Order: sequence, then structure tokens, then C-alpha cells
Amino acid sequence: MIAILKQGVTKQERDNLIKWFKNQNVDVHVSEGEYQTILGLIGDTSVFNTDFIENIDIVESVKRVSEPFKNANRKFHPDDTVINTCGLKIGGGNFQYMAGPCSVESEEQIIEVAKAVKASGANILRGGAFKPRTSPYAFQGMGKDGLDLLLLAKKETGMPIVTEIMNANHIQLFEDVDIIQVGARNMQNFELLKELGRIRKPILLKRGLANTMQELLMSAEYILAGGNEEVILCERGIRTFETYTRNTLDLAAVPKLKELSHLPVIVDPSHATGYRNLVKPMAMAAVACGSDGLMIEVHNDPAHALCDGAQSLTPDAFTDVVNACENIRKVL
Amino acid sequence: MIAILKQGVTKQERDNLIKWFKNQNVDVHVSEGEYQTILGLIGDTSVFNTDFIENIDIVESVKRVSEPFKNANRKFHPDDTVINTCGLKIGGGNFQYMAGPCSVESEEQIIEVAKAVKASGANILRGGAFKPRTSPYAFQGMGKDGLDLLLLAKKETGMPIVTEIMNANHIQLFEDVDIIQVGARNMQNFELLKELGRIRKPILLKRGLANTMQELLMSAEYILAGGNEEVILCERGIRTFETYTRNTLDLAAVPKLKELSHLPVIVDPSHATGYRNLVKPMAMAAVACGSDGLMIEVHNDPAHALCDGAQSLTPDAFTDVVNACENIRKVL
Amino acid sequence: MIAILKQGVTKQERDNLIKWFKNQNVDVHVSEGEYQTILGLIGDTSVFNTDFIENIDIVESVKRVSEPFKNANRKFHPDDTVINTCGLKIGGGNFQYMAGPCSVESEEQIIEVAKAVKASGANILRGGAFKPRTSPYAFQGMGKDGLDLLLLAKKETGMPIVTEIMNANHIQLFEDVDIIQVGARNMQNFELLKELGRIRKPILLKRGLANTMQELLMSAEYILAGGNEEVILCERGIRTFETYTRNTLDLAAVPKLKELSHLPVIVDPSHATGYRNLVKPMAMAAVACGSDGLMIEVHNDPAHALCDGAQSLTPDAFTDVVNACENIRKVL
Amino acid sequence: MIAILKQGVTKQERDNLIKWFKNQNVDVHVSEGEYQTILGLIGDTSVFNTDFIENIDIVESVKRVSEPFKNANRKFHPDDTVINTCGLKIGGGNFQYMAGPCSVESEEQIIEVAKAVKASGANILRGGAFKPRTSPYAFQGMGKDGLDLLLLAKKETGMPIVTEIMNANHIQLFEDVDIIQVGARNMQNFELLKELGRIRKPILLKRGLANTMQELLMSAEYILAGGNEEVILCERGIRTFETYTRNTLDLAAVPKLKELSHLPVIVDPSHATGYRNLVKPMAMAAVACGSDGLMIEVHNDPAHALCDGAQSLTPDAFTDVVNACENIRKVL
Repeated sequence: MIAILKQGVTKQERDNLIKWFKNQNVDVHVSEGEYQTILGLIGDTSVFNTDFIENIDIVESVKRVSEPFKNANRKFHPDDTVINTCGLKIGGGNFQYMAGPCSVESEEQIIEVAKAVKASGANILRGGAFKPRTSPYAFQGMGKDGLDLLLLAKKETGMPIVTEIMNANHIQLFEDVDIIQVGARNMQNFELLKELGRIRKPILLKRGLANTMQELLMSAEYILAGGNEEVILCERGIRTFETYTRNTLDLAAVPKLKELSHLPVIVDPSHATGYRNLVKPMAMAAVACGSDGLMIEVHNDPAHALCDGAQSLTPDAFTDVVNACENIRKVL
Repeated sequence: MIAILKQGVTKQERDNLIKWFKNQNVDVHVSEGEYQTILGLIGDTSVFNTDFIENIDIVESVKRVSEPFKNANRKFHPDDTVINTCGLKIGGGNFQYMAGPCSVESEEQIIEVAKAVKASGANILRGGAFKPRTSPYAFQGMGKDGLDLLLLAKKETGMPIVTEIMNANHIQLFEDVDIIQVGARNMQNFELLKELGRIRKPILLKRGLANTMQELLMSAEYILAGGNEEVILCERGIRTFETYTRNTLDLAAVPKLKELSHLPVIVDPSHATGYRNLVKPMAMAAVACGSDGLMIEVHNDPAHALCDGAQSLTPDAFTDVVNACENIRKVL
Repeated sequence: MIAILKQGVTKQERDNLIKWFKNQNVDVHVSEGEYQTILGLIGDTSVFNTDFIENIDIVESVKRVSEPFKNANRKFHPDDTVINTCGLKIGGGNFQYMAGPCSVESEEQIIEVAKAVKASGANILRGGAFKPRTSPYAFQGMGKDGLDLLLLAKKETGMPIVTEIMNANHIQLFEDVDIIQVGARNMQNFELLKELGRIRKPILLKRGLANTMQELLMSAEYILAGGNEEVILCERGIRTFETYTRNTLDLAAVPKLKELSHLPVIVDPSHATGYRNLVKPMAMAAVACGSDGLMIEVHNDPAHALCDGAQSLTPDAFTDVVNACENIRKVL
Repeated sequence: MIAILKQGVTKQERDNLIKWFKNQNVDVHVSEGEYQTILGLIGDTSVFNTDFIENIDIVESVKRVSEPFKNANRKFHPDDTVINTCGLKIGGGNFQYMAGPCSVESEEQIIEVAKAVKASGANILRGGAFKPRTSPYAFQGMGKDGLDLLLLAKKETGMPIVTEIMNANHIQLFEDVDIIQVGARNMQNFELLKELGRIRKPILLKRGLANTMQELLMSAEYILAGGNEEVILCERGIRTFETYTRNTLDLAAVPKLKELSHLPVIVDPSHATGYRNLVKPMAMAAVACGSDGLMIEVHNDPAHALCDGAQSLTPDAFTDVVNACENIRKVL
């Protein structure tokens, strides 16, 4: 981190600041320019908030030279992280399709969808048991019963399951879940992230609706810093002024996150766009720009889904998406 | 809610949809136009996601006529909600100043700041014990010890305290806290909101960085629906492309939220702007447009705050802000 | 357009409004519901601003049923528009690569780049003669001389040229230009759009940094309404809070715009991302989601470009991009 | 400007870069740190695009130390600019109310509104003759005839007039206009800004919907650099994801722009919010945070305005706004 001091700063003021920095355990390299003084802060500057340093009276401006994330940083971990769940690999060139309904609704429904998406080429089953809903009056998911039905579907099909957690107290309930999802709204639920850092199970971390890539990596850092090295990043659209799509899918985040980090990056085109007919082209685009996988909503009866039916595909439409994506993967 | 059907929809398709709506316990009023059919959905449509209805194959588009929030809605509760804590009133024309440090750091610090802000005219003490930090390596707050120091400062000064909760499991620790704050990052931590709906204590709910006013009201609805009627809304800036300020303070949200809802609305100009010298003008503007209170960061030693010093005022600067705001309140 | 009246509106008030609508040349279909009155406005409602109707005292809310654009609307023009320039087709399944430097700098430079990009597979030469620059002190382009050099490069290579216009008074200067570009900052320069509607030459219309897809189509409508039917839409990134990329490339706009309109849609991954190493993956993604072409910055000496070198590729890197895109096109 | 070089850069590479910088007429101060080399660029770096420098292969990152605007910069012009039009002063503590209809519709209308707003306390008449409209089918304004009616209203009332220009070719038509407005959509119409820099008349420059404060100041710089020193900045709302208001009024821009620049800053609460009932509280807030004036839409018959009636006040409502604002000004 580099701090540029204002002109006319006294030696006393400067020395006080340097002393304070040293108390924060960073070494300071002073460079006296003709036109101003630059302090090079050496050591762990990730504890500093640049806004804060910038607002110290004698500081003109600040520049962070190194990223604030470490465990997630490719610089310190050049090789791709490859996550292994039930023998399936995610990352490092391995591509996986996660598919299933927005919400688990019944045994019949989840078993039927699970078999259908497996037949279409999906290898991981997704389904919501605990649903984060903007309205307290909307269907909140089947909860524990939903998890049991997902495990039943896993038994029937052999597919590992991924489902969302909303409460650190539920971690025990998720013991048999293969991949635990943290939704966009909980991306900065730091207390939950800390708890997930203590377990040893893949975590699928979705980017928040208004979070930067750096914040996503810092949230991954919470989990990694706890000792859980199996984090999958997921781009699912950010919030902008555009209204023809539910969110704006930021696909440039895929190659950029993979450049900055060694963690696998997947894409959820269903929530990102909010519209069924945009899922296929966006899934194909995600594959083309290097995504390590896709998470897609598939429903046996879209018109009657209890939530988000808008963006759910029929099994046949999903088969079509998988085939189109596989064709692209062949030429990469 | 009004659903406009596509042209050329068959009677059979239409009747199926009407049947489905009726199964969701809403009555349907059919209006056959020359150019298309409009279905008026009567009853509790707050369970529906407009995106979902809009994506039913035979639906052209949907229009919500009534707001999805009820308990928070001024239409059903015309009078301002007035919250009472330790004899202080918030809302209904009562204005309160909440001030204190970003983080509680030591007994000496919190007592000194508490006395200073009280002398300046603050009547509620704010201070962070549990801190939501983007980086796992940044100071996370003193936790339980910080709460104890806040209670000590309350004992010393008689000021009620407001401090942030990040984990539903900590609710017992907050038993003696007067107002529990839910930060922007937890505005849609629905599990936490549900728990806070079960207690009987004022909740200060901050707007999320990328959340709409409607979403803020829906999150308040989670608390109100649980039976806790004491919710204070707080505008603290939203995220935009502007970089000269940390966030963009959306002051129009103050009169608009008060038009839509009966809940008190306060403003936090410190976090919203991120810069010390913008706190006073934004505080004055907040008062002028009808805010029911202000939450301002004050520190006894801004240059050395462990976090967010950038936006902290000295006690003297805070006195100046209070005086300026009081002058405006006199003429309202 | 549908207007829902407030409850308790008198017959007199209602009739006055209906009379006013009829004076605006729209027919009104009244539907008396049990719970409220709905006015169906039949005719050309594109003259109305929904905000305005919504603010008429007796109106509860308004819903636009049909899009406000007509000439650009696929509903009234189901077949893809195919633009023909110098025998090259754009749209309707025809894909073109537009490549060249950000700015024309010298005869040697433009001729060298033109030959290089042609050899790599580009079939249209891009280059800036008039440059829109945020700073009045930055290089503003070679102007007329730059146009002459582009025409020279066309003569040398046979490639049609596309270059940006910033001033309606320059239209004569662009007489020999094959495709006239309207940049993001001029997307709503309506006076310029009107003038471009009067000529008969393909217009490449770039989406503004904060404009919706509907606004882009309405700007295209200005040109089309003037009688110029050759408009190419270009997605080049929108402005969000993300800072790791210059803009956020909204690729979902490609399939969505092609669903809404019959006009060709191309993508500019260079300006959208601002970083050289993101151009290839985003170009591939654009091809995969149905783009009709790409506009890419190529420079013979990126490190010394007078502007935007950051995002320019070397000819070799561009060849690599073309090959990767062609591989994807083969499997579509 | 400071450029931090990557580690492991060769002396040769470094010297080439320094040579190139010197060719751009900036002096380079080299600071060899233990951990990396920092180049201090001394001279006019406003010609550089930081993205560009940042993308030179051997550069790690760049930091701009000084703002890219000069003529608009308070550092080089500490005193407030005070603009004088027809004896009325704007800036430097002088506050003015600009009021009138969105569009000039008829002699009767503009004269009536002009007299009404003057009686209410307005001292500058606003009215649109040339209207920037998203739709080519919407009313485009009366054009030249509208200007004539504004001049007639000026003659009747003695109030100077402010109206929007959309085309550099119209400058002669605006010869008798007192203040020429550049609308949000033309804030980066650089060709128009250059022309307005050549005349000697106050320019009211509105912030674009997605433009930063720095970009607004750079657009002002275009006018100032041309020799026209009379620029008034106007905050009128930026585009965000919020939908309950038309735009998000960024009031923090008022004190921030006045800190960065010596130019007067006014606020337009009508366009910013889009709703009549939000104009008064936002006008009061604008006064409270230091605005130098207000621009407010007033119509003699809001329900029938040809455009933007939604946000227009009646003369009586405007009188109420002026009184409320004057009360606040008294205590500042």
C-alpha cells in the first residue's frame, strides 16, 4: 500500500504517522520526492481500510498495490483449485451441470425432476429447501423435509446435491448435503461465512446483487481463512438500472475472477436473467468465456412452480441447453 | 394485481389459469375487452412474484395494484408509529440524535465519547461491538466485552444505546440493549429478521446497499409480521457508479418512505458519504426533508480510529452539526 | 396502454379524463370492475409518457401493454434486417468482424493495421477520426485528415470502413464512409439521430453507458422513423459499481434485443471491459449468445497508442480471437 | 500522477517507458524502493487516461494525484464564481429560483405561468422550446416559436430566461436567451460544449444520468477552456436500480462539487424525483446542504401538461415551496 502525503507536512506530523503505522505492524519505506513524500507500507496491509488511511489529515491519497485477499489469490496459489464431491471434479478444466427445481415441493416432484435432469446430462442436483424470499408471505420452502426429499432423490439417482443454507444453526441439518450454497443475499453474512469456514465441505458462494468481484473474493476469504479450502464462486447477475432482465449477468467476472483467483467459477443464468428464453444463450456464453459449470433451474411443470417458474426450463429445454453447451465445450 | 392475457388465448387455457389462481385463494374478476382479456386478481396477491405470473405462457403482462407490504403500509395504519425507548420518543414529530464511535475500543474511549456526545446534544449512544467487516483480517469488534462497555457508558450517562447484531444466536446478549441495529449487509438476512420479530424491542433496520425502498419495507414486514411493531427505518446510502463519495445518499427515500409507511425514518450521513466534511451538510439536508433522527459517527480521536475514522467527527464538529440541525428544525 | 383509476373517482372526473384521452387521438375502452375501473387506451399511445399518465390525480397506476417502438419492433417486422455494405452482409445469420485502432494516428499506422486485421480475418476496418474524450486536454482525433487516411486504407485493402460521427454538421465529410458510428455518449443526441435518419447509409448505434435496451431501441426508432432502415445495434457495456472492469458488458442484451427487434446486434468487448486480456473470452461469449458481429480494437503498437491502448490487441492476439470465434461459430 | 512498476522490470524497459513519458512532455521522478520502483510524473498529466497507463505491460498500477480539471478547480481559483445575468447574481452566497413549465405550449400559458411564478418569488423563468424526448413520436417542443414566446414572457415580466439547447446550429437562435441550458443527455455532447465555450453567456450544465461528478466537471472544463467562464452546474438525479423515484437525487454532490470547484451548483428536484409531492422536501434539503439555486417545474394546469406533468407544481404549491426554502435560508 502506498500513501502519498500532502505537501507542507511537517517532519513531526510525518514521523507520528510512520510511528502509528509501525504500531500496526507494517514497515514503512519513505521516499522523499521533489514534489512530495511517498510512504510505502510493507507487510500485511489487508487490515487497513483505504478510505480510513485516505482520511488521515496529512494524507493526500492512498493506493493499494496488492489485493486484500490472500488465500483466494492466484498469485500465492497459481494452480486451479479442483473440488471433488462424490467423485465429481469441479474446476481445473472439469465442467459440471447443476440442475433442478427452484424449490423442493414434493417427493414425486423432486424424484421426477432429478431423473429427468440426470437423463439430460446434469450431474449435480440442485433444489431449494430453505428459500430466501423478499416477502414474509411468500412460500419459504419445505425446510428440513425438503432436505430429506433431496437426499432421497440423491439415493434414487446417485447425484450429489447442492442446496442453500440461510442460518448457521442449520449446519447440522446439512451434514449429508454434498455442496452447501450461500445465496446472494447472504454473501456478506459474515457470521455464517465464519461457521462455514469451520466445516470441511464444498461451499458454493453466490455473488451479491451489488457486490464487487473483490468483495466476493473477500467473502470467499472468510471461508478459506477458517480452513475450508473448497469454495466455488458463482456469478448470478448484479443489479443495474436495466429492467428487461431481472439482473445483469456480468460474464466478464468469469475470466476476471479466474485471473485473480484459483477458485472454480460457475454461472447461474436462470436467476441472472429471470426469463426462460434467455437461459440457453447465456449458458452458452458462460461456457464460451470459461465457466467451470452451470447452475440451471429445471422444473417438471414450469407454469405451476411455486416460485421463479419464470426462469425454469422444462427437462426437454434443458436437454437442448446441455447439448448446445457440450458442442461449444468440444471446440474450446 | 391485474394480469393481461395474450391475444388468441383459448377459453380452455384461460379457464385453467383462473382455476389455478382460485386454488391460490385469490378471486378472479374477468374483464373481456375488445382487444384483450384482463384478469383482476382479488385477495392476498402478496404471495405472488410478479415475474412468475408474467412468465406464464398465456400472460402478456402483470401489474401490481396494491403494495406487497401490509403491516408497514400507511394505508392500513395512517398514524405515525412512535417508538418509545427509555422515555425517548422516535417518530411522530419527535427527533433524536444517535451518536458515538464506529467501534467500541476501550472503557476510557466509550465513556469519554458518550459524555462528549451527550454534552453536544445527542440523546442515544451508538457504538459497534460486533462489526461486519469486508475483510476477515480487519478488526471484528470487541464483541460481548464491547456490549458490556456500552452498558457501562449507559449507566454513566443515562443514554439508551443502539448497537448492531449480526447473529441470531446473540439475541440473549442484547437483552439490555435498548435498540438493536440490523446493518445494511443483513437487511435481507431473513432468518435474523424472523428472530427479531419474536422479541419486543425497537429494531433499527438499515437499507441495503442495493436494495429498493420496497425491499426495505418488505424486510421491515418480516419483523412486523412476527409481532414486533417497533421498527425504525434508516437510509444510509446506496451503491452507484459515483466514486467521490463512498455511497450515494438517497434522501428522497425519507419523504417517500414516510408517504408509503407509518414507520419512523432516520438517516446516517456518516456511512452514506464516507467523508467527515460531508456529514454536516447531509445531516442538515436530512433534517430539512423530514428525517426523524440522525445517526452520526463521533470519535474522540478520528485520526486513530480502528475503522471508518474517515467519516468520524470530533465532539466539537458534532456540536456544530447539532446546532445547525436544531436551527433548521426550528423553522420546520 | 391500461390506466387503472383510483377508487371513488366520480363519473364526471372519469369522463373528463376519457375526453382528454380522445383529444389525444386514442380510443378508450372502459372496463368497470367490482373493485375498480380500468381504461384500455387503444391507438398510438407511444406519445404518452407513463410517468405523466400515472400522475394524473385520479389515476392509480398505468401499464404499457405494447412497446413504444414500432419500426424497430420485431412484431411488425418478423424477419431479420440484413444490412449490405460493399457486398458484405450484416445480420440474418451473417457475421462480420470490425477491427482497427482506437484512433487513426498516421498513414503508416492505419495502412499497417488495416492490412494486419484483414490478414487476420477482419472484413470491416474501424478507426476513430473524431474522438469523444472526457477531457478537453486529451487527443481529440485527426478529424478530416483521419477520415482521408481511413479512405486511403479502404483503397489499399478493399475493406469498408466504420468510424464515429459527433456532429451533424460533419455528415457531408462522411459521404464516403461505409458505416457511420454513433457513440455511447451520443446515443440520445436526438438532433444527430434525426439527421442520420435523413441519409441512406448504415448507422452503427452504440448503447449509452446508462441506457436501457428500450431506450436504445427508441434511439434506433429516431433513425428508422426518418426513413433510414439500416441500423446496427451495438452492446458495449453499461456503467455499474464494479471497478475491476471499465464497464459491465451486458451480453443478455444480445438475445433480448434480437427477440424484441429485427435489427442486427453486435458487441464491442474492447470498450466494454477496458482490458486486453478480457477481449478474447468476451468475444467468444458474444458469438455464443448470438451476436451478429464484433468490433475489436487492434493496434500495431498497443503500448504506445494515443488512447485506450489498454484494451487494444496486437494483430497476432486478434488472429487468435478470430480463430477462437470461428471455432464457436462452426458449432452454432 | 504516480506509476508503480511491476517487480522484475528491466532497466531497459524502464528507461523506454521514461523516454516515452518525456516525449509526452511530462517530467519523470524515479523513486527506487526496496520492493518496487515508483515513477512520479510531473507536468500536465491530464492528457493521460489512467486506464491506458495502467495497461502498459510493465506498469503495476497508477494513481492520479491531482484532479484532471483545471479551470473548474477550486485549488487554482479559491473564490466562488459569481454569475451575473440581467443584474441577478448566481453563486457566492446569492440564491435564485428558476421556475416555469416543462414545455412552452402557448402564449397564454407561458405568460400566465411566468406571472404566477414571479408572484411566488421566482426570479428566472424556465421553459422548454426544444425538448429532448426518448420517443420520436412524443411532442418535441415548439422550437423557435417557443423561444419567441419565452422572450415575450421576459418582456412582460422582466425575468431573465433559461432554456435548453440541443443543437450547436441553434446558437444564433439563442442570442437573446439569458442562460443556455445543456441537458443531461447532452452533458457529454463535446461538440456542443466546444461551441458553447466560444460564446459569452451563462451555461447551465446538467449532470448526466450516469455521469460522475468528475465527468461533470470535465464537461464544464470544455466550456471554460474555450474562454466562457460562466458555467452553472446542476444536479438533477442519477440513474440507479430504485424505481419508486424516477432518478436518485445525489444531494451530496452539492457540497462535494462546491469543495472541488468554484462554480455555482443548483438542484432540479422536479426531474430528479419525477413526483410532485417529493419536490418540496427535496427543494428544502437542497437549500439546507448549500445549493446556490433551484430549478422547479411549475405549470398552470399540471393534469394536462404535454409532458412531465407528473412532476409539475401548481403556482400555489410553488409558493409554498419558496416560503419553506426561504425559512431555511434565513437560518443558514
